[in-house]
Amino acid sequence: MKKIYGYIDQNLNRFIDELFVLLRQPSISARWEGVVECSQLLTGMMEKIGIKPSILPMGGKRNPPLVYGEILNPEARRTLLIYGHFDVQPPEPLEAWDSPPFQPTIRDGRIFCRGSADNKGQFFAHFKAIESVLKINGQLPINVKFLLDPEEEVGSPSLNEFCRAHKALFAADMALNSDGPMDPSGRPRLSFGNRGVLYVEVKARGANQDLHSGNFGGPIPNPAWRVVEFLSSLRRPDGTVAIEGFYDNIVPPTAKEREMMAQMPFDEKKFMAKYGLQKFAPPDDLSYMEKLMFRPTLNIAGFTSGYGGPGSKTVLPCLATLKMDMRLVVNQDPEDIFQKFRKHGEKHGFEDLDVTMVHYYYPSRTSVDHPMAPKFVEAIRQGFQKEPVQVPAGGGSFPGAAIRNILNIPILSVPYGNADENNHAPNENMAIDCFQNGIRTTAALFFQLAG
Amino acid sequence: MKKIYGYIDQNLNRFIDELFVLLRQPSISARWEGVVECSQLLTGMMEKIGIKPSILPMGGKRNPPLVYGEILNPEARRTLLIYGHFDVQPPEPLEAWDSPPFQPTIRDGRIFCRGSADNKGQFFAHFKAIESVLKINGQLPINVKFLLDPEEEVGSPSLNEFCRAHKALFAADMALNSDGPMDPSGRPRLSFGNRGVLYVEVKARGANQDLHSGNFGGPIPNPAWRVVEFLSSLRRPDGTVAIEGFYDNIVPPTAKEREMMAQMPFDEKKFMAKYGLQKFAPPDDLSYMEKLMFRPTLNIAGFTSGYGGPGSKTVLPCLATLKMDMRLVVNQDPEDIFQKFRKHGEKHGFEDLDVTMVHYYYPSRTSVDHPMAPKFVEAIRQGFQKEPVQVPAGGGSFPGAAIRNILNIPILSVPYGNADENNHAPNENMAIDCFQNGIRTTAALFFQLAG
Repeated sequence: MKKIYGYIDQNLNRFIDELFVLLRQPSISARWEGVVECSQLLTGMMEKIGIKPSILPMGGKRNPPLVYGEILNPEARRTLLIYGHFDVQPPEPLEAWDSPPFQPTIRDGRIFCRGSADNKGQFFAHFKAIESVLKINGQLPINVKFLLDPEEEVGSPSLNEFCRAHKALFAADMALNSDGPMDPSGRPRLSFGNRGVLYVEVKARGANQDLHSGNFGGPIPNPAWRVVEFLSSLRRPDGTVAIEGFYDNIVPPTAKEREMMAQMPFDEKKFMAKYGLQKFAPPDDLSYMEKLMFRPTLNIAGFTSGYGGPGSKTVLPCLATLKMDMRLVVNQDPEDIFQKFRKHGEKHGFEDLDVTMVHYYYPSRTSVDHPMAPKFVEAIRQGFQKEPVQVPAGGGSFPGAAIRNILNIPILSVPYGNADENNHAPNENMAIDCFQNGIRTTAALFFQLAG
Repeated sequence: MKKIYGYIDQNLNRFIDELFVLLRQPSISARWEGVVECSQLLTGMMEKIGIKPSILPMGGKRNPPLVYGEILNPEARRTLLIYGHFDVQPPEPLEAWDSPPFQPTIRDGRIFCRGSADNKGQFFAHFKAIESVLKINGQLPINVKFLLDPEEEVGSPSLNEFCRAHKALFAADMALNSDGPMDPSGRPRLSFGNRGVLYVEVKARGANQDLHSGNFGGPIPNPAWRVVEFLSSLRRPDGTVAIEGFYDNIVPPTAKEREMMAQMPFDEKKFMAKYGLQKFAPPDDLSYMEKLMFRPTLNIAGFTSGYGGPGSKTVLPCLATLKMDMRLVVNQDPEDIFQKFRKHGEKHGFEDLDVTMVHYYYPSRTSVDHPMAPKFVEAIRQGFQKEPVQVPAGGGSFPGAAIRNILNIPILSVPYGNADENNHAPNENMAIDCFQNGIRTTAALFFQLAG
């Protein structure tokens, strides 16, 4: 590894220059800006390293270009599938950026650019790990496949179906995802899973226009009250979800998962002070981590009705819009939960509400006892020179279930982004040392998995 | 009256030109723009007619300039107090106006300008009635006093206190308010009262910033749920208000008020079609008019939390803002109701919510059996050549209670604005024939009241 790490150090500035080329190419899936161009740029970069690329149109109206790549070694015993995504979030608000969002700029040892950490910089570290191993060793000790998603930032709507249709192509022993931030303590993380998400929108309508609350208030129904009634029916006074069957089949943490959570660095007092919190949400007998990783949520992500500006306006609104996200845990099925959500409304007399499913991700977890897991731990130790924090499941959501549940490949996440990467926000950035340690970690992982 | 009406007809164009001068002067109380200038312009106009004006600073930080005026006849037996307001709503959104908001423009027999109907055009009609009677008769048959409010559009915050301190100055037998629109049927209206209003704002806070609903959802409390819980506690399933003592002392309609409501032109089927309604709010055994005039409301005027834009955003909001208005009926006291609202929150464990009173108006009703009422009816008949619709109480709110309850003067409202005046909205307008009939009605009223 010493020689490989030497190569990484010597070539780091060139690696960064090459990453800049990728970062300068906008690829905003939400408005379909530059995504196709970015897929073409990627295949060129992969070919140059020695990865055999192909663009796989995923079908449908947009026909998004999934970028597949492989670099095979006939003698290798194991295959690693690497998941990444090359689309990015819209850069707005532009005025909040200290340098233009698609003009990579180095300040204080960090690369500032939309997509620097989420996710171009992170999967590009894998590219450069392959290059480094090839230059020193002539070949990789394992087979590597890439699945680069063009639509992660809009919920990967085509991925599940595409994976179902291409199981053989993606076949591998293990999968790796590098996305999101490292632990706030500054240590790297190894994450075994993530919660799913189901996003729904509910609309209640009253009259066909906003009305004067005095000249019309009383006889005219107010849709905001209707949504309040609906929300009240969804939740018990103790904060649990009242939808029938919502908690069915939930898998509680194992002893080892509990141990893992207990060992995570978490200073409750500091955390509460940082976020200005007086208390946590119930139930009180569950730890912060258990509530975050092993319990589903029913979150009001948006409630909008009537006038919300400064001062007062006496309005009887004609519309109330509710946006909810539910973070789901293994084995909750978003399609099933959506049906239960709908049925709950019908059963309680809310047929008048418009209920729409916006998008979802399945939850997924890989066993914390998986025999390959210690190899990931060792690779992270070598790459970052720090002990990783092991996490049974992230609270957030990503399309890992497509790989874990549809392709049936155990997937582990090793984020290379600094904890303050500002993903989805202005001044998104990737620390150069995290990028460098990430390349080292990936290279080490190839040898660990081969062994 | 014939000669007087002749004078009005002959001078109508000049009256309109003079009104234009008043309309061109912005007087936006919400941002204190031109209110003082407008008060000075008014005193000049009043003096020219023969009304003795004075500007009465109301005190406090802004020291708003109430415009008082009187024209006394030593032989008159009766005094009429006329209430009006010379402040206007902000004109925004500017792009929705077909002509500039402070540039009066005549189209299709209407004067388009902010303030044309609400309320400059309406109280200016009283000025011109005085001029017309003086020109023909040499004197008024009654005494007339003016109370022109500089702050009606921001809730008349100084008026109650000022009236308490100047009872003798405003002393009168009867009061008249001309504001708001005529009946949608096209007939004029005589209104005996109005509901009060209490506007409150409630804020619930969670963390000190919006958070990612996945990375933080579960352990972190969501303030939107807190507001939903609070709202649920405020209302019973049948739609009635659950605040203890909310309905205390409410006065039900008398037989004559019921008769009045039954005689109001109201085509329920057409109304529901116009506003796209399937049904009215409960209780089903009360008529539309009774719910509007004799029952209080607890209205959600605004509920804002999290993301309300297009598409989805997974956010755990740090703030939920609730704006509520309560339309109150005789004898509900806004100060008392606010205390009951607060106490309800404390009693049900919502001490964590910030509850603020924003503003209020008292409800007021003048007896429909008042011996002067038939004189108003006759004056309207003469002025508009139509039978007025008699209304026990408007659903909306205006500072009539300051006159009815503090000055202890019975007040009746006779709106001169056309039903589609667009008050508070772009393209506010006053139909010229309404303005003309209004002047005629006021002139007729002077003689009716003198008799």
